[in-house]
Amino acid sequence: MSVELRDIDAALARIRAYVHETPLTTHASLNVLCGTECWFKAEHKQKGGAFKARGAHHALTRLSPEQLACGVATHSSGNHGAALALAASRFGTRAFVVMPSNAPRPKREATIAYGATVIECEPTLAAREETLRACVEQTGAVFVPSYDHPDIIAGQGTVAIEMLRQNPELDTLVVPVGGGGLLGGISVAAKALKPSIRVIGAEPEGANDAKRSLESGVRVTQHHPDTIADGLRTTLGELNFALIQRYVDDIITVSDPQIIDAMKLYMSRAKELVEPSGIVGLAAILRKPDLFVNSCVGIVISGGNVDLEHPVWL
Amino acid sequence: MSVELRDIDAALARIRAYVHETPLTTHASLNVLCGTECWFKAEHKQKGGAFKARGAHHALTRLSPEQLACGVATHSSGNHGAALALAASRFGTRAFVVMPSNAPRPKREATIAYGATVIECEPTLAAREETLRACVEQTGAVFVPSYDHPDIIAGQGTVAIEMLRQNPELDTLVVPVGGGGLLGGISVAAKALKPSIRVIGAEPEGANDAKRSLESGVRVTQHHPDTIADGLRTTLGELNFALIQRYVDDIITVSDPQIIDAMKLYMSRAKELVEPSGIVGLAAILRKPDLFVNSCVGIVISGGNVDLEHPVWL
Repeated sequence: MSVELRDIDAALARIRAYVHETPLTTHASLNVLCGTECWFKAEHKQKGGAFKARGAHHALTRLSPEQLACGVATHSSGNHGAALALAASRFGTRAFVVMPSNAPRPKREATIAYGATVIECEPTLAAREETLRACVEQTGAVFVPSYDHPDIIAGQGTVAIEMLRQNPELDTLVVPVGGGGLLGGISVAAKALKPSIRVIGAEPEGANDAKRSLESGVRVTQHHPDTIADGLRTTLGELNFALIQRYVDDIITVSDPQIIDAMKLYMSRAKELVEPSGIVGLAAILRKPDLFVNSCVGIVISGGNVDLEHPVWL
Repeated sequence: MSVELRDIDAALARIRAYVHETPLTTHASLNVLCGTECWFKAEHKQKGGAFKARGAHHALTRLSPEQLACGVATHSSGNHGAALALAASRFGTRAFVVMPSNAPRPKREATIAYGATVIECEPTLAAREETLRACVEQTGAVFVPSYDHPDIIAGQGTVAIEMLRQNPELDTLVVPVGGGGLLGGISVAAKALKPSIRVIGAEPEGANDAKRSLESGVRVTQHHPDTIADGLRTTLGELNFALIQRYVDDIITVSDPQIIDAMKLYMSRAKELVEPSGIVGLAAILRKPDLFVNSCVGIVISGGNVDLEHPVWL
């Protein structure tokens, strides 16, 4: 069971009515600083403030009416939970979201605001999975995973189709990688649409399981992430890793201070709000500018849900 | 000497090559909260991060080559100084900007980054005017005022032409008012293009000289502004007041906490960075929602230059 361009094309047709085609924008002063032409895909302006709306809505379009009627459930530290809550409300069903106690406050609040039932648990993968299992057992809801599933990957991959339509000149894509749903889906679509394109992952140094997995050829399943990029702390998925091994050219890691610098730079120049996980692509270009000289780079900004009461950049 | 639509049309033709046509965007969740249809004109995404680029570039297109060669000078606590610096660099001339010692750091830094010479003075109007006079005397630079001048007003008024082209359905405009260049210019253009349109100013309670001037019929020239909206502390100009008296329907004042609330709301929903002065229009709608029911409201966001190191919303 894998994901191909035709799945991603079909996903785009299915979700078109529910999600935004987000803008692809460029900024003269950032191009000068990066020493290359940068085009930013604004998934922070997606419904719910993150690309996760694509996969969540797509997954729900693939459920039968009977399944949908049972409600949906997931565990998530943030954007996927909010996206699933949003999608469930659009499809007229219930959502149960297991969230670790350290989930960012605004993401938790958004999930509740979209009408989901939030169930808090300890911030460990074991606790999340166990709490979810109990929730599914009690409610009969259908589990919708956050990244390691073909429907989710196909949904997230729709970003690449839009980008290459919006600017066919793009010769490189730089994409955040956490669980690998976004990078996996984008790499499939991009390489199928434009075989010459480079696809590069961007990852925090403190959560570099994708980098280590790609280098060793063996998926890292145990890791102890330590990064401000809360959306990228998840462990690379199995299906995701297979796609990344096949289609991704390189992964660049960035430190938390580099993420903060990129975040402040983008906010002050573009006047847009981005979350730490969202801006690792720009941080990667600023860290390794030599890799991007004379390129036309598409950078995916994956989300913009920051806690304004506790700015991480201070 | 006044300003008419034809002056503003001509200004738009002159500045088109130098400034952005900024987007006009709407946000479903903000429409629900405001109880009306809101369209935001994104002048925080203008060159230099504020609408001031329009007036400054227009003023420079109106100088003779001989005048331009002398350089330009102004006093400004922020966005006009940066805009003049930017315009001067585009026109290949020098800019001298007198800035009070309490000018926001990022605005001062931007002015310097655009190549201007910044001359610091005490934060009083008298000190600003005296320092500017000395600067003009020494350098021979041409004074480019920040708001009380037909060329500046015509430049800022171009915002209204774009808005009504971008959405001809707009039936109300809400515009920040400080010195009155933006509100004056917009009101002239909007009423000429669409006589039925309402034009409403939005002003901090702590700098309500425009409101008091409009109510009494006499321009307030002495006032002691106390507001976080640093761009709106200036005193209403003479020419500006005459236009506002003639064309503006109402002025709504908002408190600093209301400005902060509107700022946080817009940032979290639209994922865009706005400055306190920039978002008074949204604050005004949230304060007086009854005035905007069943309307199609254009809200000018005048700027987005915030100090990320010292977030005013905390």
